[in-house]
Amino acid sequence: MLQQLAGRCGPWLVGDGPESDIVVSTRIRLARNLAQFPFVRRCSPQDRAAIEKTIRDRFQNVEQLRQLIYIDVDELSDVDRQFLMERQLISRELAEGTGQRGVAIDPDERFSVMVNEEDHLRIQVMASGLNPQVAWEQINAIDDLIGQQVVYAFHRRLGYLTACPTNVGTGMRVSIMIHLPAMVMTEEIQRVFRSFQKMGLAVRGLYGEGTQPRGDFYQISNQITLGRSEKELIDQVVEVARVCIQWERRAREALLRSNDKSVQDAISRAYAILQTTHTISSEETMELLSRVRMGVSLGLIEDVPITVLNKLFIHTQPAHLQKIRGIRLDTSDRNVERASYLKEHLAKQR
Amino acid sequence: MLQQLAGRCGPWLVGDGPESDIVVSTRIRLARNLAQFPFVRRCSPQDRAAIEKTIRDRFQNVEQLRQLIYIDVDELSDVDRQFLMERQLISRELAEGTGQRGVAIDPDERFSVMVNEEDHLRIQVMASGLNPQVAWEQINAIDDLIGQQVVYAFHRRLGYLTACPTNVGTGMRVSIMIHLPAMVMTEEIQRVFRSFQKMGLAVRGLYGEGTQPRGDFYQISNQITLGRSEKELIDQVVEVARVCIQWERRAREALLRSNDKSVQDAISRAYAILQTTHTISSEETMELLSRVRMGVSLGLIEDVPITVLNKLFIHTQPAHLQKIRGIRLDTSDRNVERASYLKEHLAKQR
Repeated sequence: MLQQLAGRCGPWLVGDGPESDIVVSTRIRLARNLAQFPFVRRCSPQDRAAIEKTIRDRFQNVEQLRQLIYIDVDELSDVDRQFLMERQLISRELAEGTGQRGVAIDPDERFSVMVNEEDHLRIQVMASGLNPQVAWEQINAIDDLIGQQVVYAFHRRLGYLTACPTNVGTGMRVSIMIHLPAMVMTEEIQRVFRSFQKMGLAVRGLYGEGTQPRGDFYQISNQITLGRSEKELIDQVVEVARVCIQWERRAREALLRSNDKSVQDAISRAYAILQTTHTISSEETMELLSRVRMGVSLGLIEDVPITVLNKLFIHTQPAHLQKIRGIRLDTSDRNVERASYLKEHLAKQR
Repeated sequence: MLQQLAGRCGPWLVGDGPESDIVVSTRIRLARNLAQFPFVRRCSPQDRAAIEKTIRDRFQNVEQLRQLIYIDVDELSDVDRQFLMERQLISRELAEGTGQRGVAIDPDERFSVMVNEEDHLRIQVMASGLNPQVAWEQINAIDDLIGQQVVYAFHRRLGYLTACPTNVGTGMRVSIMIHLPAMVMTEEIQRVFRSFQKMGLAVRGLYGEGTQPRGDFYQISNQITLGRSEKELIDQVVEVARVCIQWERRAREALLRSNDKSVQDAISRAYAILQTTHTISSEETMELLSRVRMGVSLGLIEDVPITVLNKLFIHTQPAHLQKIRGIRLDTSDRNVERASYLKEHLAKQR
């Protein structure tokens, strides 16, 4: 199953959604718990096994849930766990945790349901570009289907009950993954992000909580889930994302208009290095792909589609590279393999 | 005259001499003074003018010296002075000095005679590759021709008298310009150079005394001129250069043999950047050209001849770039112009 996933990519990465030149994806996740069990961190191993069994059994009752591929994360190798995380199908917490836990994956990778993460259930939906409407309709439908099969822990006044108080209420987090290379170049980004934090929005790196921004990718998401409707929460994040998009576009135009050749230079060097390198780290690859991605958006590079770049961001990461090549590789061998993978895929475009 | 020189290059840069993959050039210079005048630093302006006049007049008596092009360095613009220095036709001291001074240049750029540098006359000959024999025969012949026209300051026991005691005796310095990128990469170079200094040899940068090594080019030359014959002095420097060549070849082979891709990577990145950059400093250009030059020697790059690279080292320097383009350019415009010049000349090779 994982081997099959390795070579291709989820539809949210294709880059055909709205504002895809700047917004990579819209992700919504819902935290849910089964009323009959204690929260995960208080569970005995037996409880965790029983939760998993309950969910897997109930999923069999519903056509759309029956077709999900269930993966026992506890049984996976480290590489496979990292692979699922790189692919955004599981969280870092689930990958690095211990004990009975798993994930049910939609074969088309439109959504996944984590089991025994911080909450019993973490349902998540991914959509390409800035697409909150589609993501919300999908996740709402999945939530209803599951809710008909199990009894959720729900409080009439508070809403959904969750292991961490910050998720109580809607249990929802909406995250927009946005690519802001020009704002990084013009150094506007720090100021902007400080103002977001005052508005109760979180800005995080590519893999969510506790990760550093890499390749100029940021996730903007709501911190608060209580006291507002799902629609209000989504609207606020989307509105801020729209402001970011506008700022980023303005920063890109300013960089282009300025007579300074350093932007074109950074972009064309990045592209040249990716096409010719013999050994390259994952960090540098992200950085250079980010510049090339901006070059494509600015019309400075015309021979490589955004889809190819989006895929390369994921496929050149350590676990993906090993799954694709079908062998375990140490860091230095990965760097060589990564260079040859980049060459193959970027040379094809010429 | 300078404008004509700008686009082409001296024969010593063509790279057809012995060991040209590692040795760029062999230079010999002789310090000479006219017995009838005080040393330059004790000269009045009238003395300096009289020295220049004497030399120019006497040169008219000899066929081979009559055809030299005499340039009044004091009258040149800063750019033109820097241009002659970049081209190795005058020393930094002559370029940056004051007062009446000049240089007589062979139209083929095989030799030049500086007037009123530290000594009244500094005769220098350049040859491609490791070619001490040819350089010595040439400079010896020129020295004889001039010596028949003027009376040199000469002491029966000490030899030629010079302004600085370190030049007394033969007044000769032989300098071999050598390209040692592999020894820099393997970090052997510092150890080697320390041992040279113990042997009374100087190691300097591209523009001689007081300049830093750039682009992995070094000049090896004798420190002592007294108490040994010209032949002995030349032989010692050449012997050391041969040892250096051997070490550099061994270092290159070791780098190639090692399974480490970082050498190929450094070389192919350098070549890719030079072909695609939109703005680049003179320092970075030297560094990258140096890697490409090694790549050609190692057979890793096949589509650009050493001659082209040797020329680019000189032609991309600040004053050359301005002479070639025929306009004054500030640093940032030069960086853009340098990038486009590199692109023109490296793309042609493909």
